Amino acid sequence: MAAGRARTVLLTGSNRGIGLELVKQLLGAPRPPAWIFATCRDPEGPRAQELRDLASKHPNVVLVKLDVANPSAITDAAKIVEGKLNGMGLNLLINNAGIYTPAASLETVDAEEMIRTYKTNAVGPMLMAQAFLPLLKKAARESTEKGLSCSKAAIINISTIMGSIEKTSESFCKPVISYRCSKAALNMLTKCQALTYGEAGILCVALHPGWVKTDMGSQEADLTVDTSVRGLLSVLPILSEKHSGTLLNWEGKAIPW
Amino acid sequence: MAAGRARTVLLTGSNRGIGLELVKQLLGAPRPPAWIFATCRDPEGPRAQELRDLASKHPNVVLVKLDVANPSAITDAAKIVEGKLNGMGLNLLINNAGIYTPAASLETVDAEEMIRTYKTNAVGPMLMAQAFLPLLKKAARESTEKGLSCSKAAIINISTIMGSIEKTSESFCKPVISYRCSKAALNMLTKCQALTYGEAGILCVALHPGWVKTDMGSQEADLTVDTSVRGLLSVLPILSEKHSGTLLNWEGKAIPW
Repeated sequence: MAAGRARTVLLTGSNRGIGLELVKQLLGAPRPPAWIFATCRDPEGPRAQELRDLASKHPNVVLVKLDVANPSAITDAAKIVEGKLNGMGLNLLINNAGIYTPAASLETVDAEEMIRTYKTNAVGPMLMAQAFLPLLKKAARESTEKGLSCSKAAIINISTIMGSIEKTSESFCKPVISYRCSKAALNMLTKCQALTYGEAGILCVALHPGWVKTDMGSQEADLTVDTSVRGLLSVLPILSEKHSGTLLNWEGKAIPW
Repeated sequence: MAAGRARTVLLTGSNRGIGLELVKQLLGAPRPPAWIFATCRDPEGPRAQELRDLASKHPNVVLVKLDVANPSAITDAAKIVEGKLNGMGLNLLINNAGIYTPAASLETVDAEEMIRTYKTNAVGPMLMAQAFLPLLKKAARESTEKGLSCSKAAIINISTIMGSIEKTSESFCKPVISYRCSKAALNMLTKCQALTYGEAGILCVALHPGWVKTDMGSQEADLTVDTSVRGLLSVLPILSEKHSGTLLNWEGKAIPW
């Protein structure tokens, strides 16, 4: 039940790490999506080679240039995706793109770093949902399913346990202030999205992928990207209205705010 | 026990609403602080008349120009305050300045509004603590008190229940997305400040003043500014290390994240 059998999926930050693995595992599912819109900042650049290779082998993967820190790039991408969908809706928006500055402690972090991180990690997902809302609503309207689900219409915000205020002391060996503050805001955004978009039939959930061996997580991390993404993709099909507006980990366990 | 007998206090946004009332009630206490640094964006402007009147009658009130959205204005203000303190430390920093855009729903809010609000409500308090940290540390070092308290050294971030993700559905008749996200981030910041500055003897607490009849809260609000501030000032003296890194209301009751 890859991605809860979403027929059309869009991901941000899909050229590496968790985003790239999501594309791979969605493609490897028994019933892969009809369309996977794999977006990243520079689909023509050297860091997107692996994604381009995938797209060249799978005609259902469409690469779209998109920097979530650039509002006009988001609306441009929404037009491209709408054209390609040609009347279909978008079932699943996965806001995966994010930035992380390991060195940002209270001693070193400045206003610029705080705002740069907020722009990508919190404002970006908000603008993405606004821009793709008509396509998500269309998917919800055209679904015959009751309730909320990822196969109908959903926004998944890739968040982190490091955005949990309650759990902060457990991981404060890495202060990463700009990241934590932006992700606490993303968690709040997810709750607000759930309360706003629920009526239109759109599920909104924040997911913590675990501490994953990627460029962001470093090789000291405790999960492989394969395990994390396998977990995330097995959580998506079980999500329903009772999960909307919550933060869950890659095993589907609730994390306090 | 006004402000937990803090000898030296600095407040932001002190020309109106809760900030102005804090100055008034601190001055009216049986043992008022030796210095109250009352800061606001435009101490010479028409909206600071009442504050200027207070300062003209009370030589322990020092008006300082300070826009918390302007990093260099913050460091400039810290130099002025340090000069005036003339070797004394700062016991109590109250980050009260904040902005609120009533109309910011998910339908209408944009990137600019999100960032503008984050800058004032979350980044500002972070920069304030950084800039005044040497003076807060000095106050903590020179205190003979054990543990943490507002009379020793403390950062009070004026937050809101609207920054509580857990409580969002109870007040979502006012979506105010930019405000909620910035205040969830401020709550996270408070937790990080408590974990970082606790070792230096500095208490860090977020306080919810209630829904108060001010320009921000409107006249429909359910608390007078007098009641709210009386409550806040009665909470300060009871704060200790067990409260550091928490969100409390004007009656001292804990609010979940």
